[in-house]
Amino acid sequence: MQRSSIRVLRQSAALLSRRIAASRTITTRNLVLIPTASYSTKTVPFTADTYSHKIHRDPKYKQLEPQDLEFFKGIVTEQGLITNEDDLLFYNEDWMRKYRGQSKLVIKPKTVSQVSAILKYCNENNLAVVPQGGNTGLVGGSNPIFDEIIICMSSMNKIRSFDSVSGILKLDAGVILENADQFLAKEGYIFPLDLGAKGSCHVGGIVSCNAGGLRLLRYGSLHGTVLGLEAVMPDGTIYNSMNALRKDNTGYDLKQLFIGSEGTLGIITGVSILCPSRPQAQNVAFLAVSSYEAVQKVFVEARKELSEILSAFEFMDGTCQKLTAQHLKLDHPIESGEYPFYILIETSGSNKEHDDEKLETFLGGAMENGLVDDGIIAQDETQLQSLWTWRESVPEATAALGGVYKYDVSIPLADLYGLVEAANERLAEAGIASLEDETKPVVAAVGYGHVGDGNLHLNVSVREYSRDIENVLEPFVYEWIQSKHGSISAEHGLGFQKKNYIGYSKSDIEIKMIKEIKNHYDPNGIMNPYKYV
Amino acid sequence: MQRSSIRVLRQSAALLSRRIAASRTITTRNLVLIPTASYSTKTVPFTADTYSHKIHRDPKYKQLEPQDLEFFKGIVTEQGLITNEDDLLFYNEDWMRKYRGQSKLVIKPKTVSQVSAILKYCNENNLAVVPQGGNTGLVGGSNPIFDEIIICMSSMNKIRSFDSVSGILKLDAGVILENADQFLAKEGYIFPLDLGAKGSCHVGGIVSCNAGGLRLLRYGSLHGTVLGLEAVMPDGTIYNSMNALRKDNTGYDLKQLFIGSEGTLGIITGVSILCPSRPQAQNVAFLAVSSYEAVQKVFVEARKELSEILSAFEFMDGTCQKLTAQHLKLDHPIESGEYPFYILIETSGSNKEHDDEKLETFLGGAMENGLVDDGIIAQDETQLQSLWTWRESVPEATAALGGVYKYDVSIPLADLYGLVEAANERLAEAGIASLEDETKPVVAAVGYGHVGDGNLHLNVSVREYSRDIENVLEPFVYEWIQSKHGSISAEHGLGFQKKNYIGYSKSDIEIKMIKEIKNHYDPNGIMNPYKYV
Repeated sequence: MQRSSIRVLRQSAALLSRRIAASRTITTRNLVLIPTASYSTKTVPFTADTYSHKIHRDPKYKQLEPQDLEFFKGIVTEQGLITNEDDLLFYNEDWMRKYRGQSKLVIKPKTVSQVSAILKYCNENNLAVVPQGGNTGLVGGSNPIFDEIIICMSSMNKIRSFDSVSGILKLDAGVILENADQFLAKEGYIFPLDLGAKGSCHVGGIVSCNAGGLRLLRYGSLHGTVLGLEAVMPDGTIYNSMNALRKDNTGYDLKQLFIGSEGTLGIITGVSILCPSRPQAQNVAFLAVSSYEAVQKVFVEARKELSEILSAFEFMDGTCQKLTAQHLKLDHPIESGEYPFYILIETSGSNKEHDDEKLETFLGGAMENGLVDDGIIAQDETQLQSLWTWRESVPEATAALGGVYKYDVSIPLADLYGLVEAANERLAEAGIASLEDETKPVVAAVGYGHVGDGNLHLNVSVREYSRDIENVLEPFVYEWIQSKHGSISAEHGLGFQKKNYIGYSKSDIEIKMIKEIKNHYDPNGIMNPYKYV
Repeated sequence: MQRSSIRVLRQSAALLSRRIAASRTITTRNLVLIPTASYSTKTVPFTADTYSHKIHRDPKYKQLEPQDLEFFKGIVTEQGLITNEDDLLFYNEDWMRKYRGQSKLVIKPKTVSQVSAILKYCNENNLAVVPQGGNTGLVGGSNPIFDEIIICMSSMNKIRSFDSVSGILKLDAGVILENADQFLAKEGYIFPLDLGAKGSCHVGGIVSCNAGGLRLLRYGSLHGTVLGLEAVMPDGTIYNSMNALRKDNTGYDLKQLFIGSEGTLGIITGVSILCPSRPQAQNVAFLAVSSYEAVQKVFVEARKELSEILSAFEFMDGTCQKLTAQHLKLDHPIESGEYPFYILIETSGSNKEHDDEKLETFLGGAMENGLVDDGIIAQDETQLQSLWTWRESVPEATAALGGVYKYDVSIPLADLYGLVEAANERLAEAGIASLEDETKPVVAAVGYGHVGDGNLHLNVSVREYSRDIENVLEPFVYEWIQSKHGSISAEHGLGFQKKNYIGYSKSDIEIKMIKEIKNHYDPNGIMNPYKYV
C-alpha cells in the first residue's frame, strides 16, 4: 500500500518532467520582481495624494537646494547621484506600484565613510532621508512619501570576507541576496535565509526589515544568525560590531535594535552572518489535500518524522494556485483535479538515501491515513525548481490583474486560515469581489504562507487600488488578527502601510519604549519619516 | 579497515559499560553545583575587602532600614524575606566561592506585580538591588558586592503554558532549567539549551546572562529562540511581549536588550521560548586525538558529514581530563593511554539507524585518516550520560583543589588553544604553578569547551585565590584575546569579574551606547551596581 502510493507520486513526477520540458516559459526559480506589462502603463498616483487625508509633509524638513547637491557631489561624485525624473521613478515607486514618492535625489554611496558624511550633513541640515535596498519591500517602507532623499545602497556591493571553517560571511549591505548565496554555494555553504525576491533584494535590506522567508523553519531568525553589523547613526557615528564571533556576551546586544528597525534608526552598511553548510541532498514534494485541518495534521506529522531534515513547509489555497496557473500559462503539476489546499515540503540533508527513505516513509503514511489526496516528488533539480515556482509565483500572480493588498500575519496555527475565510466573507458582503466578473474591483482574497512559522500571507488580488476597497479591509483585518492574539506583521514589517496599526500588536508600553529609543538616536527625526515610528 | 576500527570502539564501549556498573559514584549527568567539602570550611573573604583597592560603596544608595523591611513584608509576607545571617550566606556567596557580598536581605517575590512593587519602592528610595536566579553564575554577576538587596526569583517557578503544535513554552523566570526540560520531555520537546548547572540554574538567569551551553551548535542562540519576555523595569513598569509568536515584525525587538544585560536593566520575570522536537535518537562518541590540529580537522569533517544531526562538539585537553579522573575517582573511559586532547561528539536525530550509519561512516573515515587515535561510542543511555560526565565534571574538577580562575572566551578556531599554552607559559615564567608540588599556589591552566562555537573555557585551577595570581593572569589573558580579535566573554557574561575589561571586546562607541541605554532605563542606577555597566 505504502509503496504503491509512492509509485503514484513517482509517475506524476515523470509527467511533470515531460510537461516542463514542453514549456520553457518558467526556467528559473527566481522570477524578477518587476511589474508586468499589463499594468505598468498606468501611472501610480503619489502616496501624498492617495493619503492626503492622513498625512502631510512636515515643514521642519528642509527642501533640497542647489548647495546641498553640490555637497553630495563632493562626496560621491556626479556618478553617485540621480536627479533625472525618469531615472528617479524606479526608486520613488514600490514594486507593487501602490506607493509613489516625490524624491528629487537618489544618492549611491560606495563606502561607510560616505554614508557617514551624507547622514551627518542631512542631520545638521534637517534633510529627511529614506534608506533603500533592492526596493522589493511590501509595505512601502523603503520609498519616500514626499521629497525625502533616497540613499540607495546598491553601490556598496562587495563580499568582504568568508571564513570557511566557521561559516562566517561578512559583506556590504548592498550585496544582492542571490549573489551572496551563489558565492556561498562555491564554498559549500548556504545563506540562512531565502525568499522570492532574492534576485533583487539586498542583504542589508532583509536585515533591516528582519525578513523571514522560506527557510526560517530550518535556520531560524536573523536575530540568531546575524553576528555583527556595521551601521551609520543619523549623526554620522559609525557603529561597528563586525568582528563579533559566534558567541560574544560582552554588554547589551545593540545590533539587535537595527534588525527590524526598517531604516528608522540608521543605515546598515555591513553585515556579518553565520552561514550553515549547504545541504548535500534536497527533496521537494508537492501535495494536494482536501481541508485546512489536513494541512495542519500533515505539518505535525512532517515535523515529527522529517524532523532535522525538514527545511520548508509551505501551504497555498486552491484559488491562489488557480491565479498562478493563469499567470504562468501552465497546467498545474497536480493533474488529478482542483483541490482546496496544496502543500510544498522541502527536505535538506547530508545523505540523499537517508532523506529519500524518510520522505517516502512519511508520505506513504500520510497517503495511507488519507491525509494526502495526491502528490508529486521532484526527481531532479529542474523539477525541484519548477515546483518551487508554483509557490514563489503566487505574489506576482495575485498582483498581475491590477494590484494586490498584502497582509502578512502571524496567528496561532489553528486559526491561521480563518482570516482568509473572514476576508472573503467581508468582501462578499460588500459585493465587490468576483473571480470572473471583471467589473468588480476585487478578484479574491487568497491565502498561502509558511505554516511552519504560523505565518500567513493574505493577498487580496484587485483589478485596481481604491480607498473604498481599503476601507472594507482595514481595520477589519487588523481587528480580526488582534482578536486571535496574532501579529499584524510576521515578516514584512510595518513601513508606511501599517504605520497606524502597530497598536494592534504592541502594547502602549512597548510603543512608548520604541519611541524613546527612536527619539534618543534620531532626535531630529530625519531617518525614514512618516513611517511607523 | 573501517569496520574493524568501529569494532574497536564497540569493544571499548563494552569495557566502559562494565566499569560503570562497577562504580556507582557517578550515576547522573547533572552534578549538583555545590562547593565540595574539601574547601567549604574556609571562609570566603568579602569581595569588598578583596577588591578594596578598586571599589567602594557608593554613598548615593540608602542603607536598609526597619521601615523598608516593613514595606517589603507587606508585599511578600514574612515567608518571602530572608534576614538571618546564616541563611543569607548562600545568596551572598557565588558557587565558585570567590565572591562574597554583605546583603542583609533576600526578597523572594511570587508574582510579577510583587516584583514591580518592590522595584518601584527601591527606585524611589535609592535602594540598590541585585537580581539572582539559581546562583550558578561564573563571573560574580548575581551576588551583591556590598549591601545590595538580593531579589531571588526561586518562588516564581511555574510553567505557564505550552503549545504542543508550535512548541512555544511560556514559563516563570524562576523555573529550574532541568525542570523545564523534564516537562518538555513528556511532550516530546526539548529545551533549546543545555548546560552543566541545569539542575540549579533558572531559565530567567540563563536568558538574562545569554548563556550558550552545550547545544548552541544545534539550536542556535537565545537571541533567536526566545520569542518574548516579561520584565520589570527599575521604575516598576512591566514590559510584556509574552504573546509574541514565532514571527513578529512590528517595531524594534526590545526584548533583545534584556537578553545578556545581566540584570542591569530590569528583572526578567517570564520567558516565552521556542522549543524543538526532542530527538528520537542520540549518540555520543568520545575520541582521543594527538594534537589540537587534529581536533580542528575532526570538527570540519564532522560538520560536513554529520551536518544536520551534529548537536555537540566538545573538546577537552589531557590535563583537565587528568584532574577530572582524580576528582571523580574513576579511570578514564579511554584506556589505551593518556592523550593530549579528547573530543566528545553528540548526534541527535529522528532515525537511529540513519544516525548510526552516518556516525560510523564518519568515525571510520577519521580513524582511517589517522585523525583519531582511539575512541568509544556509548551503547545505551547510561553510557551516554557517563561520557557526558567526563565533559561536564571539568568545571568542578578544576575548582576542587581550592578554586579556579575562569576565562570564557571566543577566538577564531585556529588560535583557540593557543591561549591555554600562553597562560601556562606565563605561569611557568612566574614559577607559581605545578600539578604535583602542593606548595605552589597554581595547579595548572587547562582548556576545554565548545569547538563548534569557537568557544574556549580557560580554567586556571588554583590551591588558593590570591591577588598575585590574578595579577599574573590579568590583564595578560584579556590582552592576548584582544590581539586575536576575540571576545573576553563568549557565554558567561561580564558580571563583576570582567567589569573593567569590556574595552578589550567593545569599542568606545559601543560602550557609550550601552551606557546611554543603561542611564535611560535605570537613571538612579539601582539595578545590579558595581558590575560591568
